[in-house]
Amino acid sequence: MPKDRGTNDQPVVGVDLGGTKVLAGVVSPTNEILATAKRATKAEAGVDVVVERLAKTVRDAVSGAGLELGDIAAVCSAAPGPLDPEAGIVRNAPNLPGWDNVPFARLVSEGLGGLPVFIENDVNLGTLGEFVLGAGQGYQNIVGIFVGTGIGGGIILDGKLWQGTHKTAGEIGHAVVLADGPVCSCGSRGCLESVASRTAIERDIWLGIKAGRESGVTGILKRDNRQRLTSSILAEAYAATDPLVTEVIGRAQFYLGVCVANIINLIDPELVILGGGVVEALDDSFLEPIRRTAYQYTLNKLDAKSIEIVPAKLGDNSALLGAAVYARQRLARE
Amino acid sequence: MPKDRGTNDQPVVGVDLGGTKVLAGVVSPTNEILATAKRATKAEAGVDVVVERLAKTVRDAVSGAGLELGDIAAVCSAAPGPLDPEAGIVRNAPNLPGWDNVPFARLVSEGLGGLPVFIENDVNLGTLGEFVLGAGQGYQNIVGIFVGTGIGGGIILDGKLWQGTHKTAGEIGHAVVLADGPVCSCGSRGCLESVASRTAIERDIWLGIKAGRESGVTGILKRDNRQRLTSSILAEAYAATDPLVTEVIGRAQFYLGVCVANIINLIDPELVILGGGVVEALDDSFLEPIRRTAYQYTLNKLDAKSIEIVPAKLGDNSALLGAAVYARQRLARE
Repeated sequence: MPKDRGTNDQPVVGVDLGGTKVLAGVVSPTNEILATAKRATKAEAGVDVVVERLAKTVRDAVSGAGLELGDIAAVCSAAPGPLDPEAGIVRNAPNLPGWDNVPFARLVSEGLGGLPVFIENDVNLGTLGEFVLGAGQGYQNIVGIFVGTGIGGGIILDGKLWQGTHKTAGEIGHAVVLADGPVCSCGSRGCLESVASRTAIERDIWLGIKAGRESGVTGILKRDNRQRLTSSILAEAYAATDPLVTEVIGRAQFYLGVCVANIINLIDPELVILGGGVVEALDDSFLEPIRRTAYQYTLNKLDAKSIEIVPAKLGDNSALLGAAVYARQRLARE
Repeated sequence: MPKDRGTNDQPVVGVDLGGTKVLAGVVSPTNEILATAKRATKAEAGVDVVVERLAKTVRDAVSGAGLELGDIAAVCSAAPGPLDPEAGIVRNAPNLPGWDNVPFARLVSEGLGGLPVFIENDVNLGTLGEFVLGAGQGYQNIVGIFVGTGIGGGIILDGKLWQGTHKTAGEIGHAVVLADGPVCSCGSRGCLESVASRTAIERDIWLGIKAGRESGVTGILKRDNRQRLTSSILAEAYAATDPLVTEVIGRAQFYLGVCVANIINLIDPELVILGGGVVEALDDSFLEPIRRTAYQYTLNKLDAKSIEIVPAKLGDNSALLGAAVYARQRLARE
């Protein structure tokens, strides 16, 4: 990285790098998104292709904002983990072959003419984004839980991102809530992700349909010519109180509520933020049963209901904006 | 409390107040236990009786050390919770009638001629004791788990006790690991305590015996003329590889291992300390299966085995010594 670092009165670029798409946004010093760009990640094509596509997407966003790379103070990207945010290295990405000890920040920096590049995991960035700019504004101790294909989380304690000893804290999706439950993508059994992610909900709805239960989702899929139960299809069937969908989502809500209570009992935060595709699509009708279970399972009944359980506010931009916040924190520190 | 506070070069008294016994110890500025005293708590007799017995026990310990109350800088006692350690108030003790908003620190202070008195919960104090003087020395991020009649825990982050927003953090025993599992003493289902405490182990051994399974524990109970499966009786039967006891304890170890992994995945500490009556009685033969499960369920396989899972070192004195440490921290702060 170059020695002539940018300053905090220049824009930064935040990047949400996911398994399917990369979303880059130019963010002003006052945290406005000046322009965004998006393309497919092509994660299966290997590190070099991902780096190239990410760099292109950053350049597109910068052009879209009418700027040049030289106007940008720094870039921060989400990255798969476990990772070392200080060294900018992806130590290992279990589901992506070839991602072992990849100097990801340096590679991206080289693709962007030597701009300072930082990395963190997407849900830590999402939690940081919500903390500084979204639902967590004004709080000091918060936990973010993001429910989508998988489930991830982030923790803010005393106003700072708690990264943990090995920078791997916050793996809420892999907390076991149902010992000996379903096999999870991580290889364990009964993790929250295995019983409450969109993947788990989709699996259990298909199990019901294959066993002969009727459900409105088959009609919706046919109508829309779709194969997968996306969050918006789940939302439509849930709003129509489809019995199978309501039952399966009800179980996911129960496990999410129990897990929120586990986190409250362990960490005792002020606020729990729920975000991610499933939460966004289903909105507050999805959260209310989670709240009821969480408060029931919270040990400290005196304070339970003062611990707010709220939806995320930044939607698809939480990780991107969190990345911008993290880039500025790192610039200020270094 | 008086304004002429003691100083940190005088002894303090640490008190471990449990449901059955109160143990007080005079602790020198170099953390030596100069004398201890013990009596039954008589918790069922109400707040005033407990306070009186606690104050007497403190006086006995002070006399035993050849000192007078005026030589003591401060007293810190474990107390039931949720509590407010700053105000010295027990806000509520679900299992003790009449303990609602009790100014416990003030009442004890009045019984001890106005000495400064602080309170905290027993497992937070036990974890603090292990952190400063026991198995946690030299670490910054540790979690303590104490397995006895119940299961409790404490968390040290960046070298400080993490008390949480409402001072109720660390309730590891009431993390649900087996959703819809056995009803717990707290009123929830499937908490770690309901499947892995001595109470749970005893319950399941009796269920086996009542269903006609043979076990060496019946002979041990007859020989010793005992009714309850104490930790030492469990240890004897476990050492003799009694099949029923081995099976029941094996399940408890599995749930403890899963819960240790949950905590590692969430908080990412350097060290997990296991203590309490069951762990002490059964020793490292009890811990090894817990370690194996914990490492299997830890998501970050790269670092899992560098997170040590070790027995507590201070035995019965962990809370008492932690109380002495906490008293000195509070004296230094105020």
